[in-house]
Amino acid sequence: MAETLARSFRGKRVLLTGGLGFIGSSLALRLLDLGASVTVLDALIPDYGGNPFNLHPHYDQFQIIQANVTQARIVNDLVQGQDFIFHCAGQVSHVLGLRDPYPDLEYTIKGTAVLMEACRHNNLAAKVIKTGTRGQYGPVQKLPVGEEAPSNPRGIYEISNLAAEKIMKVYHDVHGMACVLLRLTNIYGPRSQMKSHHFGVANWFIRQAMEGQTIRVFGDGSTLRDFLYIDDCVQAMLLCAICPEARGEVINLGNGQPVSLLELVKLIIAAVGKGQWEFAEFSAERKASEPGDFYADISKLRRLVGWEPSVGLAEGLAATVDYYRKYRQHYW
Amino acid sequence: MAETLARSFRGKRVLLTGGLGFIGSSLALRLLDLGASVTVLDALIPDYGGNPFNLHPHYDQFQIIQANVTQARIVNDLVQGQDFIFHCAGQVSHVLGLRDPYPDLEYTIKGTAVLMEACRHNNLAAKVIKTGTRGQYGPVQKLPVGEEAPSNPRGIYEISNLAAEKIMKVYHDVHGMACVLLRLTNIYGPRSQMKSHHFGVANWFIRQAMEGQTIRVFGDGSTLRDFLYIDDCVQAMLLCAICPEARGEVINLGNGQPVSLLELVKLIIAAVGKGQWEFAEFSAERKASEPGDFYADISKLRRLVGWEPSVGLAEGLAATVDYYRKYRQHYW
Repeated sequence: MAETLARSFRGKRVLLTGGLGFIGSSLALRLLDLGASVTVLDALIPDYGGNPFNLHPHYDQFQIIQANVTQARIVNDLVQGQDFIFHCAGQVSHVLGLRDPYPDLEYTIKGTAVLMEACRHNNLAAKVIKTGTRGQYGPVQKLPVGEEAPSNPRGIYEISNLAAEKIMKVYHDVHGMACVLLRLTNIYGPRSQMKSHHFGVANWFIRQAMEGQTIRVFGDGSTLRDFLYIDDCVQAMLLCAICPEARGEVINLGNGQPVSLLELVKLIIAAVGKGQWEFAEFSAERKASEPGDFYADISKLRRLVGWEPSVGLAEGLAATVDYYRKYRQHYW
Repeated sequence: MAETLARSFRGKRVLLTGGLGFIGSSLALRLLDLGASVTVLDALIPDYGGNPFNLHPHYDQFQIIQANVTQARIVNDLVQGQDFIFHCAGQVSHVLGLRDPYPDLEYTIKGTAVLMEACRHNNLAAKVIKTGTRGQYGPVQKLPVGEEAPSNPRGIYEISNLAAEKIMKVYHDVHGMACVLLRLTNIYGPRSQMKSHHFGVANWFIRQAMEGQTIRVFGDGSTLRDFLYIDDCVQAMLLCAICPEARGEVINLGNGQPVSLLELVKLIIAAVGKGQWEFAEFSAERKASEPGDFYADISKLRRLVGWEPSVGLAEGLAATVDYYRKYRQHYW
């Protein structure tokens, strides 16, 4: 499979929006390793996930453009000649979306329209792969959650991702563009920002444990989640990009194996070797938008690209803790 | 029922976004008649539905603000003290949305966010009623279409309405705001613009018949649609606005009785007293986004507010033709 990927991406031109963020930079490094020529677009908006250190020690091997995906003139140029575009740019915090809806509408929705218009007019042949969120489903009616489940998102971040996904689907249907529409569960691992609790919960708990703080587990800790290690996520994204049958498809990208928040916390404390936890009440805001248990049905992804998650949670957490021990000063 | 409405709206303050358009102006006139104090906000964007003549001969009895719903400073002021807000502003053409996505994102999505943020900060008690579209459902899996049907919209116009609706639902869920989320079928009648075929199909066919042109019926004319006369639509909207059980609900607003496009055309030719028709091929663009048969399940609306459509199609078309014969110079 590594050989298939090398054959598919060697010498290919790839654009990554949000390419200095957690998922974008992890993709960038893997693509570099596969022999692709990678352009990274990132606005480096303060308090978002972008971090130039994420590309260390290969920063100089990328073409890096600091601009927003909404800047049409720049994006019109950048898409030209690209074989693949991984579209990871956007506002990525549920909490921030509820406080101020405009960045989501601007970066996530309009940014997607700018990218797709740029491709429509300058590069109809590019394959565009979008990273959406499991939050697009909202409250779960049946577990595991398959792609046909209803979409009742409970936040501006989730609604914006849903709208962006549906916009891309229109460009697929009407203009024949090759789009893959992924819905990611909880991704964790090295290169996620660690400055704020507004992003991935697993990484935030890791920081708290590393600092010896008390991790607050909301509710009774039994809420089920679907955690996937970043390397597995990247592998699946690359396989989807080169899979003809994935075009125009909405596809869950997750582990498929549920873990309770309390289990996660205990595994994190074990991986870090210290830390403690306590139960905490949901805030009213959190409760109103808390979607409950979630784990994905990943049979469509399995069927289409023959992928399986390969990194267990304990192993992934250990690798994550190692990374942040080594590079803490770049993330804290 | 007329008495209930008069009691509910007499002396009340009502804001209408898109209030010079087809549905907004029809609501405005009815609310004036019921004794409400009505403020009309309309950007009068060229080639959209806004037309000052729509309020004739009562134009001077409204407070009319020419501004866009995205202008936060103005909207922040306007929402203060309003009892009801009917939110009809937005880009309203499927075809235009596919040509250029930005007006939909700006006016329909961001405009809704501006309105809801304005209410959140200045008037949490306002009841906000949104006019969405049956296009939010996309291709139909089961007829008639109930509110629980999946949402697979096939155009930027429809996606933007879906996103705007879901944004309002978040403000209901998280901030406790009273929102009613209507999905309208094909509404026809006096005061719809008649300059372009980009808007309602029934009105456009009426113009063609009145001009003695040949009406082009796409496909074999068997496509089923759900046409509702504007006065019935206005009545249902007012009843939803005062119904406590409608808060936070997505509700279909249609006739529920399907009519084929060919039947519609024949009724229009009869109402006008002249005209002819021919079959025409779908364009590729149209075909890719054509959702097929549609008629709404309106049992939820019936149950919640005890409303029934009261104007038959032949009767409604005759009234529409009368209106445009009288005021043709203001619409052609």
